[in-house]
Amino acid sequence: MIRKLMDAVREKNAPVVVGLDPNLSFIPAELLEESRREALAQGRELTPMEAAAEAIWKFNKGVIDAVCDIVPAVKPQSAMYEQFGLPGLAVYEKTVRYSQEKGLIVIADVKRGDIGSTSAAYAAGHLGTTEIEGQAQRAFDADFATVNPYLGSDGIKPFIDVCNAHDKGIFVLVKTSNPSSGELQDVLTQDGRPVYELVGEKVREWGRLSMDGRYSNVGAVVGATYPEQGRRLREQMPETYILAPGYGAQGASAKDLLHFFDENGEGCIVNSSRGILAAWKKDAYASFGRDFAGAARAAALDMIEDLRTALAER
Amino acid sequence: MIRKLMDAVREKNAPVVVGLDPNLSFIPAELLEESRREALAQGRELTPMEAAAEAIWKFNKGVIDAVCDIVPAVKPQSAMYEQFGLPGLAVYEKTVRYSQEKGLIVIADVKRGDIGSTSAAYAAGHLGTTEIEGQAQRAFDADFATVNPYLGSDGIKPFIDVCNAHDKGIFVLVKTSNPSSGELQDVLTQDGRPVYELVGEKVREWGRLSMDGRYSNVGAVVGATYPEQGRRLREQMPETYILAPGYGAQGASAKDLLHFFDENGEGCIVNSSRGILAAWKKDAYASFGRDFAGAARAAALDMIEDLRTALAER
Repeated sequence: MIRKLMDAVREKNAPVVVGLDPNLSFIPAELLEESRREALAQGRELTPMEAAAEAIWKFNKGVIDAVCDIVPAVKPQSAMYEQFGLPGLAVYEKTVRYSQEKGLIVIADVKRGDIGSTSAAYAAGHLGTTEIEGQAQRAFDADFATVNPYLGSDGIKPFIDVCNAHDKGIFVLVKTSNPSSGELQDVLTQDGRPVYELVGEKVREWGRLSMDGRYSNVGAVVGATYPEQGRRLREQMPETYILAPGYGAQGASAKDLLHFFDENGEGCIVNSSRGILAAWKKDAYASFGRDFAGAARAAALDMIEDLRTALAER
Repeated sequence: MIRKLMDAVREKNAPVVVGLDPNLSFIPAELLEESRREALAQGRELTPMEAAAEAIWKFNKGVIDAVCDIVPAVKPQSAMYEQFGLPGLAVYEKTVRYSQEKGLIVIADVKRGDIGSTSAAYAAGHLGTTEIEGQAQRAFDADFATVNPYLGSDGIKPFIDVCNAHDKGIFVLVKTSNPSSGELQDVLTQDGRPVYELVGEKVREWGRLSMDGRYSNVGAVVGATYPEQGRRLREQMPETYILAPGYGAQGASAKDLLHFFDENGEGCIVNSSRGILAAWKKDAYASFGRDFAGAARAAALDMIEDLRTALAER
């Protein structure tokens, strides 16, 4: 699957993934009203959760339609759907499916991780198949999932089995983009290395179990907000593709990301969520008015240009 | 909320939580058939996912009815529902609700954890409320959730805010019960302490933000399979209630758990999933035939007796 992602990045010349983390605060209020009205016209009264979920679906669809020809991938964040209960999860499922229909690769940002058979169930639910009476059934069926390493190999290997069986991929959290990520991840171990480097080493080992061309289907999440750590991890994990969140709203720039890429300008894909989804609310894209999709496309194009320029100049 | 859990443990004299991790391999096949038949009688043909989910619902209901007067809490494991897609999650929701109706406290074993606003969305979805047009709406609304600490305080504090606002609780993964948990958790840091002790210290700090009587609403997951580490953590985290998985099927006995409890025989609740759910398939409970619920009750009673005896003899 990592090869498919790399092909798609090359084809669109855009190492960019759009994070589909729809927050009601940046979904135009008229989408909720519209959802309610349309349902009423069909004789259905929506619960608040259903109305919110339907508004998110309209929003996602607008964004996906606006960016699907310029970016290779999207990354729906499951928390943002779970908070709307079952209607939210139904929209999560539709979002995964619709994105794939539009030719996008879907990275399920679920940050799951458990032990043995439980991790196997997560892997089955999000990437693989569940066996029912001898038949394989698909649940959410994304292309990649993000995975938490705290439980060690027991939590990761069931995902790798699914990657190998179904040509899928995972990104393991190594160094996350948030301010407090260092509380645990930067702690120095007795051999002088921080915890995140130890996890990076494990990720490289796990990666050997699912190579797919030059890179492995087992990638790493490394926050764009930590450029120095990204540089070290790039050297330490030469076969590990990096998913880098933190660009834009979280403060990282294209320059911060240069060392996350390999000598061919590959090996990394950069996520932006709020910077693209909420572009219509920013002064820079005020000319779009309430056309959130047009503003999202413009913001995505600006981000792509920013990364292309920085990579060309390095 | 931890006070409510402790009251319930005292009232039933049973520091036991039944893990609702229904795996099709130990759900009697006739429940699938019955689900299909009943739906057909109502003119609906179930998809395989729907049939499996309905069978799990029947199974859960049977187990909940059989144990609700003898144990204080249940712990549904979200992976086991997610693998059946939306029908599975609908059963997860019904299971939470039904358990609460039957007077059980529900620990959502979701092992979520993300950064800032994303963790806030998970906390809202699983324990708190989601605001839609100024109104608070409830999504899954369990009583406790399990949380992963890899992202540091940013990932935990939004959960603590919800604990304080809605009288809920969390259990943070400290030392997990699986064989490979030591790969990361046992690594020695420069001050000579293993990573899990460092996390234990953080959990104690976080716990001070949500005290509820002698213990905090911020508890810890410590695997019963690691008795020595449990003893150290009990001393290190005197206000931290422990959720201990690993009893039974994973190999831990009541004796292994003695030091997880405080001097009053409190401060810990022990989980068993497969040992109770799949009891009907074990020789020891063969007399129950296919009465999975009766066997589950008998296995839960045996587990309670085992823990009571060990605690009384120490």
